[in-house]
Amino acid sequence: MSNIRHALNTRRADDFAKWYQEIIAAADMAEESGVRGCMIIKPWGYGIWERIQRLMDDRIKAAGIQNAYFPLFIPLANFEREAAHVEGFAKEMAVVTHHRLIADDKGGLIPDPEAKLEEPLVVRPTSETIIGDAMARWVQSWRDLPLSLNQWGNVVRWEMRTRMFLRTSEFLWQEGHTAHATREEALAETHRALEMYRACAEEDLALPVIAGEKPENERFPGADETWSIEAMMQDGKALQAGTSHYLGTNFAKAAGIQYQDREGTQNLCHTTSWGVSTRMVGGVIMVHGDDDGMRVPPRIAPQQIVILPMLRDKPEDAAVLEYCQEIVDMFRSQQLSAFGEPVRVLLDKSPGKASAKRWDWVRKGAPIILEVGPRDMENGNVAMFRRDKLWNLETGKLATQFLSREGFSSQAPSLLEAIQQSLFDEARARRDANITCGLTQWDDVVAHFKNSGKYPGWVEVEWSKPSGDALKVVVERLKGLQLTIRNVPMGEPASEFDPAMGVCIFTGEPAVERILVARAY
Amino acid sequence: MSNIRHALNTRRADDFAKWYQEIIAAADMAEESGVRGCMIIKPWGYGIWERIQRLMDDRIKAAGIQNAYFPLFIPLANFEREAAHVEGFAKEMAVVTHHRLIADDKGGLIPDPEAKLEEPLVVRPTSETIIGDAMARWVQSWRDLPLSLNQWGNVVRWEMRTRMFLRTSEFLWQEGHTAHATREEALAETHRALEMYRACAEEDLALPVIAGEKPENERFPGADETWSIEAMMQDGKALQAGTSHYLGTNFAKAAGIQYQDREGTQNLCHTTSWGVSTRMVGGVIMVHGDDDGMRVPPRIAPQQIVILPMLRDKPEDAAVLEYCQEIVDMFRSQQLSAFGEPVRVLLDKSPGKASAKRWDWVRKGAPIILEVGPRDMENGNVAMFRRDKLWNLETGKLATQFLSREGFSSQAPSLLEAIQQSLFDEARARRDANITCGLTQWDDVVAHFKNSGKYPGWVEVEWSKPSGDALKVVVERLKGLQLTIRNVPMGEPASEFDPAMGVCIFTGEPAVERILVARAY
Repeated sequence: MSNIRHALNTRRADDFAKWYQEIIAAADMAEESGVRGCMIIKPWGYGIWERIQRLMDDRIKAAGIQNAYFPLFIPLANFEREAAHVEGFAKEMAVVTHHRLIADDKGGLIPDPEAKLEEPLVVRPTSETIIGDAMARWVQSWRDLPLSLNQWGNVVRWEMRTRMFLRTSEFLWQEGHTAHATREEALAETHRALEMYRACAEEDLALPVIAGEKPENERFPGADETWSIEAMMQDGKALQAGTSHYLGTNFAKAAGIQYQDREGTQNLCHTTSWGVSTRMVGGVIMVHGDDDGMRVPPRIAPQQIVILPMLRDKPEDAAVLEYCQEIVDMFRSQQLSAFGEPVRVLLDKSPGKASAKRWDWVRKGAPIILEVGPRDMENGNVAMFRRDKLWNLETGKLATQFLSREGFSSQAPSLLEAIQQSLFDEARARRDANITCGLTQWDDVVAHFKNSGKYPGWVEVEWSKPSGDALKVVVERLKGLQLTIRNVPMGEPASEFDPAMGVCIFTGEPAVERILVARAY
Repeated sequence: MSNIRHALNTRRADDFAKWYQEIIAAADMAEESGVRGCMIIKPWGYGIWERIQRLMDDRIKAAGIQNAYFPLFIPLANFEREAAHVEGFAKEMAVVTHHRLIADDKGGLIPDPEAKLEEPLVVRPTSETIIGDAMARWVQSWRDLPLSLNQWGNVVRWEMRTRMFLRTSEFLWQEGHTAHATREEALAETHRALEMYRACAEEDLALPVIAGEKPENERFPGADETWSIEAMMQDGKALQAGTSHYLGTNFAKAAGIQYQDREGTQNLCHTTSWGVSTRMVGGVIMVHGDDDGMRVPPRIAPQQIVILPMLRDKPEDAAVLEYCQEIVDMFRSQQLSAFGEPVRVLLDKSPGKASAKRWDWVRKGAPIILEVGPRDMENGNVAMFRRDKLWNLETGKLATQFLSREGFSSQAPSLLEAIQQSLFDEARARRDANITCGLTQWDDVVAHFKNSGKYPGWVEVEWSKPSGDALKVVVERLKGLQLTIRNVPMGEPASEFDPAMGVCIFTGEPAVERILVARAY
C-alpha cells in the first residue's frame, strides 16, 4: 500500500489535527473568516449541512414537533432568573450594547455613545430562557400540553480556542423545546429526541454512536438530566454529537410555565431541550475522511454521482457531453431513487482538466465519480470509481470499473445504499475494536492510556456513581490523563444494584453502572 | 351581506392597521417578543415562511446558485471601506462590544469591563462586505466566474418603528451575491434574480407584482441600479416585496474582487446582490387576508386540507376518527399531488369543540376545511368549506358543500390549484382596478390623493427622470403627500426619447419613462 500516492499531504496516522485542517481546505468545506472564532461554511460543506438539516427536519416534523422562530437577542434579565443557567453561560456570550455607529475623528467608525442601550442584549447562546417566556404565555391548561417546538438558527458562544465545525463562536443548529404535564412525559420526550438523534446519526450520517446519560458534572447548565450520543473519531477521541436534556421544573419555575390540570390545580410544567449542530459535520469528517479527502455518506451528499466528461477542445466534445447528459436524463426519466429520494447527479461541465477535476471530487468525497471519454462513449461505457473503495490495494492504482452506461444506471441506487452501509460498517467495526472493557483497577486505566500509543480509544469501566465532591475528585483524577466521562450507555443498569457488577474503579465501593471514559473534542 | 358575522372584530375597510394587528394574532402567525423590535414567528407563520423558503430555494438551486454561510458578525473595518454603504447602514446596526457578563453588586449582570472587544463587531445588516472579502480570495481568474452564492439567515437593522413581518429589527431572509466578468453578465443576473422573485411571488404566493427599476434616491446604499417587485396591499399601499441590485464595481473595488482575463489582464468584477425576506409574509397577509382571517395560498400553506372530526365523547367517535384517517390514507396511497407535490393533509385530533376548531382554522386560512360528523360518515360524505369562498353571499351562511368522500379526494388536487389561481386573479383584478393612468398634471395627482378617500391606490405618470438635486425636489414634493416613487415598470421605455411620451408631470420637460407613485409600507 506504500506505493499509493494519496491526495492529501498529511496522513491521519501522522498528524490527525493537521490532517483535519487540511481535509477541510482540500474538500472545500469551510475556511476561517477573519472574524474571530467564526467560520465561513463553503458550498460543499454547507450542502452537507443542508442535507443533515433536511433529514433531521423530516424526523422532527414526523414526530409532530412544529418549527418556530424566536429572537436572536435575549435581555439580560432572562439570564438573571435561572442561576445555574447563567453560571454556565455568562462567561462566553456576545453582548450588544449600542444600536448605532458614528464617524470618529480619524475617518473610522465607533459605537455612538448617544445610542447606548439601556439594557444590554445578549446574542443567544441557546434559547431556553426566551422560549420559556413564550411558553409561559402559551400554556394555560392541560389542553395546551404537550407543547413541542423546534427552532433552526444560529447561536453564539464566545470560545477562546476554536476549531472549524467542532467549536466555533457562531454555529448553526436546531434546538427543540418542549413542555409537558408530568415528569414521565418529559423524560419520554428527552429519550425520544435522543433516539431521533441516534437514528439520524447512524442511518443518515453513517456515524455509529453510543447513546447514554451524561454524568452530573457534564450536565447542561440548569438541567436535571443530560443525555448524549457519542461518536468515536478516527484518532480514538470521542465527539459529543447531540444532547437531549430533561430540565425538570427548573426553567418552568424561572419563567412561570404552569398549567391548570383537569382538577383545576396549577402545576409547573416539566420541560426538555435538545440540539444538534454543525458540529455533526466535523464528526462526519473525522469518522469518514481518509488520506485522499472526504468520503461523504450518500444520504447526506449534496451530489451523489458526479459525471466528469473528458473534454479535449475537439469536435467530439459535443458528443461526449451529450452522452453524459443522457445519463443525467436517464436518472430523471426513470425516476431512479435511492433511500426513497431522487438520485442527485451532477454533470460537471466546469472548465479545467478532467484529471484535476477528478481529484477535486475525490477530495470532496462524492460517493460515485464517473469519467467519460470518447472511447467510453464509443463502447457505450462509463469508467466508475467508488469513493469509499478508491484504490486497488494490490496494484496501488485507482480501482476503476468499466460498466455499460445502462448497467451503471440501473445498479446506481443499490450501489449508493451499499456505500452508505459500507461506511457505517467500517466505522462501527473500528469503534467496537477500540472500546476496551474489563479493566478493573485504576492503575490499568492509567497504563492503558499511557501505553496504547496515539489511539487508546475508549474504555468502559464500572463505577459507584459518586456525586458532588466525591465526583469532583474523580473528575480531577481523569483530568490528569486528559480524560472525561462521556456517558453511561443506555441499556446498562442505572443506579440500581446489579449483582453482576464489581467494584467502582475510583472509589472501591460497589459499582452501580458502567461508564465510557475517553479523550474528547 | 351585512348579516354575515365575520370572525375578526376589525374589518379591513374600517381600520386596516388595526385589522393587520388583529389578523396576525387571530391567525396565530406571530407575536411581539418583548425584545425591542423583534418578533416571535409562531408555528403557523413560520410554516408559511418555510414553504416560501423551500420554493424559493428550489428556484435558486435550479438556477445553479449554491448556498453557503458567512459570519453573523462583521468587523467595523469592513463598513469603513465602502462609503455609500456605511452611510446607508451605519445608523441602524446592533454593535457587539463585550464578550462576557459578570455579576454586579445588585445581584444582576453587566458586561464585563475586562472583556471589552478591541474592535467592536456589527451584527450583519446585510453581507455584501463580508462576502466580498471571501469573493476576493476565491476569484482569481476568469475560470472562477461567475461566482454565484446565496445565504439563508437572519439580519438585524435597528428600526425605530417596527411592525410585525413588515419591519422588524431582526428578520429572516435570503441574500444572493454574485460576481461576474462583465457589466452585461452582472446586469443579466440582476434581472434573472428579479424574474425569479416575480415568478415566486406570482406563482407561489399568488401575489401579483410589478417589476421595475427603483429611482436613484431609492437605491440600495452602494448600488448602481436597484430593481424591485412591488405588490399592492388591500389598502392600496405598495409593498416592496423583493429587490435585486447591480452593484457595478463599487463593492469589488472596496474588497478587491478582481480576476485575470484570458489575455492576462487584471479586471474588477461586477457584482450583484438580491434578497427577499419574511416581509413577504406580511404581503401575503395584506393581499389575501379578509375579515375572517388569513387565506393562505395552497402552494405556501403548511397544511392544505384540514380535517375536523366532530367528536362528542361518545362511542361512535372512534369510527368517525377512523373514517377521517381513511381520507388521510387515501391521499397517501393514491399519491394525490397538487403543484407536483404530495397534498398536505392534517387530521386535527386536538382537544376542543369542533366549532371552535373550525373557526381557528378559518382564521388561520387553511385553503380547504373538512368537517366530518357521524351523519356524514353514515352517508359516506364530507362537509367542505373553501376558505377563499367561505360565505354564501345570498344566505349569509357558510358555503358548505357536501361531497362524497371519494369525490372530494379525487377533485382535491385540482381544487387546490383552482384556489391558488382564484386568489391570484382576485388580487390582480383589484390591483389593476386601482392603478390610475393618464394624469398629466401635478394638480391632478394632488387631487387624486386628496379626494380618492382611503384607497387612492397607485398612479402611473410620466417623468423626465431628473437626477441629483432636481430629483430631490421631486422627492420632497411627493413626500408632502406621503408618496414615494415605487419603480419604473419593466417593459416601459427607459431613458430614451419616446415619441408617445408627453411631458414630465414634475418638470414640464419631455418625459422619458413612466413611474409608479404610491403610498408605501
